[in-house]
Amino acid sequence: MSDARVVVAGASGFAGALAAHLVHRHPRLELVAATARADAGERLDRLYPRYRVPVELTELDADNPPEADAAIVAYPHAAAAPVVARLLEAGMAVVDTSADFRLHDLSAYESTYGEHGAAELLGDAVYGLTELHRDDVRGARLVANPGCYPTAALLALAPLARENLAADIVISAASGVSGAGRVVGDRFHFVSVDENFSPYGLEGHRHLPEITQELEELAEASGGPRPADAEQGTRRVTFVPHLLPLDQGLMTSCFVSPASEVASHQLEELYRSAYRDEPFVEVVTDPPGVRDVRETNDCRVCVSTDPRAGRIMAFAAIDNLWKGAAGQAIQNLNLMLGFDETEGLR
Amino acid sequence: MSDARVVVAGASGFAGALAAHLVHRHPRLELVAATARADAGERLDRLYPRYRVPVELTELDADNPPEADAAIVAYPHAAAAPVVARLLEAGMAVVDTSADFRLHDLSAYESTYGEHGAAELLGDAVYGLTELHRDDVRGARLVANPGCYPTAALLALAPLARENLAADIVISAASGVSGAGRVVGDRFHFVSVDENFSPYGLEGHRHLPEITQELEELAEASGGPRPADAEQGTRRVTFVPHLLPLDQGLMTSCFVSPASEVASHQLEELYRSAYRDEPFVEVVTDPPGVRDVRETNDCRVCVSTDPRAGRIMAFAAIDNLWKGAAGQAIQNLNLMLGFDETEGLR
Amino acid sequence: MSDARVVVAGASGFAGALAAHLVHRHPRLELVAATARADAGERLDRLYPRYRVPVELTELDADNPPEADAAIVAYPHAAAAPVVARLLEAGMAVVDTSADFRLHDLSAYESTYGEHGAAELLGDAVYGLTELHRDDVRGARLVANPGCYPTAALLALAPLARENLAADIVISAASGVSGAGRVVGDRFHFVSVDENFSPYGLEGHRHLPEITQELEELAEASGGPRPADAEQGTRRVTFVPHLLPLDQGLMTSCFVSPASEVASHQLEELYRSAYRDEPFVEVVTDPPGVRDVRETNDCRVCVSTDPRAGRIMAFAAIDNLWKGAAGQAIQNLNLMLGFDETEGLR
Amino acid sequence: MSDARVVVAGASGFAGALAAHLVHRHPRLELVAATARADAGERLDRLYPRYRVPVELTELDADNPPEADAAIVAYPHAAAAPVVARLLEAGMAVVDTSADFRLHDLSAYESTYGEHGAAELLGDAVYGLTELHRDDVRGARLVANPGCYPTAALLALAPLARENLAADIVISAASGVSGAGRVVGDRFHFVSVDENFSPYGLEGHRHLPEITQELEELAEASGGPRPADAEQGTRRVTFVPHLLPLDQGLMTSCFVSPASEVASHQLEELYRSAYRDEPFVEVVTDPPGVRDVRETNDCRVCVSTDPRAGRIMAFAAIDNLWKGAAGQAIQNLNLMLGFDETEGLR
Repeated sequence: MSDARVVVAGASGFAGALAAHLVHRHPRLELVAATARADAGERLDRLYPRYRVPVELTELDADNPPEADAAIVAYPHAAAAPVVARLLEAGMAVVDTSADFRLHDLSAYESTYGEHGAAELLGDAVYGLTELHRDDVRGARLVANPGCYPTAALLALAPLARENLAADIVISAASGVSGAGRVVGDRFHFVSVDENFSPYGLEGHRHLPEITQELEELAEASGGPRPADAEQGTRRVTFVPHLLPLDQGLMTSCFVSPASEVASHQLEELYRSAYRDEPFVEVVTDPPGVRDVRETNDCRVCVSTDPRAGRIMAFAAIDNLWKGAAGQAIQNLNLMLGFDETEGLR
Repeated sequence: MSDARVVVAGASGFAGALAAHLVHRHPRLELVAATARADAGERLDRLYPRYRVPVELTELDADNPPEADAAIVAYPHAAAAPVVARLLEAGMAVVDTSADFRLHDLSAYESTYGEHGAAELLGDAVYGLTELHRDDVRGARLVANPGCYPTAALLALAPLARENLAADIVISAASGVSGAGRVVGDRFHFVSVDENFSPYGLEGHRHLPEITQELEELAEASGGPRPADAEQGTRRVTFVPHLLPLDQGLMTSCFVSPASEVASHQLEELYRSAYRDEPFVEVVTDPPGVRDVRETNDCRVCVSTDPRAGRIMAFAAIDNLWKGAAGQAIQNLNLMLGFDETEGLR
Repeated sequence: MSDARVVVAGASGFAGALAAHLVHRHPRLELVAATARADAGERLDRLYPRYRVPVELTELDADNPPEADAAIVAYPHAAAAPVVARLLEAGMAVVDTSADFRLHDLSAYESTYGEHGAAELLGDAVYGLTELHRDDVRGARLVANPGCYPTAALLALAPLARENLAADIVISAASGVSGAGRVVGDRFHFVSVDENFSPYGLEGHRHLPEITQELEELAEASGGPRPADAEQGTRRVTFVPHLLPLDQGLMTSCFVSPASEVASHQLEELYRSAYRDEPFVEVVTDPPGVRDVRETNDCRVCVSTDPRAGRIMAFAAIDNLWKGAAGQAIQNLNLMLGFDETEGLR
Repeated sequence: MSDARVVVAGASGFAGALAAHLVHRHPRLELVAATARADAGERLDRLYPRYRVPVELTELDADNPPEADAAIVAYPHAAAAPVVARLLEAGMAVVDTSADFRLHDLSAYESTYGEHGAAELLGDAVYGLTELHRDDVRGARLVANPGCYPTAALLALAPLARENLAADIVISAASGVSGAGRVVGDRFHFVSVDENFSPYGLEGHRHLPEITQELEELAEASGGPRPADAEQGTRRVTFVPHLLPLDQGLMTSCFVSPASEVASHQLEELYRSAYRDEPFVEVVTDPPGVRDVRETNDCRVCVSTDPRAGRIMAFAAIDNLWKGAAGQAIQNLNLMLGFDETEGLR
């Protein structure tokens, strides 16, 4: 018998399907339903042969959801909010992998994503970057699972932000194609991506507000003075993602001009001490590769300096579908349900 | 009958083999010899079936080189200098693809590469980024072909440097595997690179001095004031390359904090005007992909701004073996021999 | 001034776009129009940045086509036939890259593709595997460009078929993704193809009738006795394609149980003599790789034996978009227009 | 406390490293030593970051091996035999992943691999294709783990061989690069493999004797008449492998001319019944892809017919490092130690 029954809503997308797989193989969870819209009626192990989940996708009736203790909702942005609201009303603990509950500030959400379907819940949602908000996740009924880029960027930058060192930041990031979701179109056709590498989202990627929200919070918690140019909320953060010709893997290469100087040998110690007890974050000395963390919930972080230019460089590698989406959703769900955080993720 | 007879020395490496191919198919050049060390005796079209060059690799006797008008030397760093010296003595015009003659400052060379084998020639060498030094290339007997990363980085940054806008720069670059040359080892084994993406050279990549040398020169030529922190030659340039899981293609993503403000609409015009008459540089509005320039001598440049952070972003995509090595070598050789710059490169 | 004006109809697909590119850069052809349906109004060099064709795609009015000497029609099967008919009426020489005019036998066409839109033209069409039907192509007004798999399979098997040795054949073939055309859907999404390899079309691939038609013809021309089991037109040919995780490249691995014995040393001689004067077919001793012919119109053929099992093995590698489609279309067009066959293809 | 202590000898190669990883994470095994030759002293998790095995590679002193209950020996052919002999003497149960004990016939071994280092043990070794020899594996002290190609080929063909239907066979196979082992050289350099696909081993691959040995045995066990041309041990089996541009994955596409006719609907039933109770073999209706079994010990088998040519087609997809090497080694070790066969493999 399982300890908790879980619904995965939106299990036909990349993140949802992996979430269903991870729930299905989890020693203490039972997958009571995997739902989809267009693909309802299809078997999940036919749609995703790699995942051995022998269940038929069903349609979710949010007004009469299956009996369950928890749900992972992997709907697109905006579509998620009303479904999350219903599942919460039905008594489930919910991890939402969309952007709908990540931003505390409603206007920031609206300017990026448009109207919000359940704004009244924003105050209850915990931003589920587990390593930053573990205690809040533990008691939460609603966890907003972070975006894939923010997960890696924040794990790379948090030790600096806590010391108020992260004032002026360039984040040059790169992700495998699965990060875009199961979107069909010329852009993600094999022939468009193969042997290619290209920046995108130059006009401003929607993951940036998440990153700045959390960096501000970390800096405030540090109690130190805010950087001068952050006074109007304009911390200088530039974030540009690139598309990689691979399926799963994400790297954030962060270049930081620290507000004050910091000795090189202190940096690695700062990072090692920040992540010493973290089960899924490893501080490494050699530059990490995304292949090192493929199909794991691990994040590998590496910090270095460019003494000539007076800059700190911090790199974080994750699997965008695992630590960047479904893996972290399970990590959060474990905590919400009182399980060990690593359960089912090794 | 050809207009000029050319030796390609070091034709068994990636760049040298492509150079031999480009000479072989060039309407006005005759490939009189393709030389190699370990692979002498092997046919080039057996070593590189893609290139249809039906010649046997021979050993180069630098003291008795073949009769020729020009040479492309594609030797490793340090090994190139003495060979270049001999071929110049034998009356050939030489394009050297190694780093041996790229840096004007001998001590900068020595601290990066070690002892120099023909330092007396440094003063005669022209830095062969064609778009920056076309007139000098035209009259030169010795052209130092730029590194692949500097080629893209400088084409991305030159319009800003000329306006003295490029004071504080982060260059996050990425290259396909052929950029590392025909080096055999675990690191470039298919299984190490496939589905991977990783930064490298964090301790300082040897291409950086080339980049700063040229940026300084452009800024000086602009006549404007030097940025404060550039006074001790410490212009703030951070350069970090990454290894891409593809064979040919290189992107430099440059993030610039301008010394003074510049309006967004002026930037694209600045770039368009800088490259208006360039046959191989195209300013594009959409972010370029390395696939767009694969197997061409073209560079695609795109400029944009992050108004929130007050930063300029400039991207340049090239094929590291073409514009980043052998293609640019031909482009330079064309000019040295009085041909049209694009001859044999379309 | 060009020697001939060419329309490329259907220039927004992979093969059509390459055809437009090859016409555009051809020294004796002028691209007077590149047409498309859904993408009309778009610039071709925006849709396909790699091809430097600075023209806007227009809609084709088949009743009032542009003034031109020739057309390459790269429409889907069935859609091509009526357009081809109109362009012929307008006085153009036509190369059709669809399957509509490849099969001489109308019923074979109908059972594979459905109703035929211009069956009256079947008798005039020449099957454009140039190496087999060069003389007929020279005088033709309508050439049916072969499928990509048949091109490679027939070049691998023709020397055997001519000797009546190709009675019992297994063709295990593999193609890069561009072979499927610019089809959008889950199946050709990067994430579906990457790190994958899979057979398809087990129920019978539509390229098989082309292959058998030509093998029969070659065998008949040989004058020898037909194999016993070929009497009811049932030559034993099994053809199974696989999808490769690469963009351009196609290999046919053919396993032949010869009707009579043949000495191993005779085989290579048979192949070398068959292809001695062919500009685009090279007989190689080492097994060819698709990378060897990438972005070329070349076919590399290798023959070997398995003496233990008494079998002949013949391999052919092509670029499916070049020799398997647009390259061969130009090769044929060159002949139809009285040019050298290789013009514009080196 | 673990149930059994295991040494992995040769843990620096691809298969050995995965074996060490699988032992390390196995609930009932303890990794007491991971040994290597050139890489001794290096940490395994530094050499293979993906595998989280925090142990230092040591040198194996075969005369004084570590205390252990079992060993997996992942040495190259010929080097394995003497080490296996010593570890057996030291009381360990041994799974050998080399070819040294796969062939029952010493002369077949010698003609393929050269002199044998422990021929006296040949009679004791069980050929460890688990699905064919489970009962013998259970009681064995020495199991010869099959080659990667034979594993897939035999799982594809066994149901036919048992019915004496597999007389005339073409096996067109393809493997990812890791199948060649951690061999460094031009051939497996990223740039050689990327966007490539090529047959190899045309002169006869050394995996063929394994395949024929087992097919003969299955046919003999069937009690039926041997095919006419198999009388001198010359069953007609042609096997040609190809190299795929991916890291892990292997497909065997088998084309069989059955000795007698068999109805199509009977075939799938034959396969389903053959593999009904197998935990790691799944008979699928759609053609399998190697991506479906990546990083699993599963084999996906699909059978189909080409009625026109009277041929049976059988396909099997595995991960060459898992079911084709280290995964199957654990599967066998589980049985030898009396554990459930699937322990540690899900």
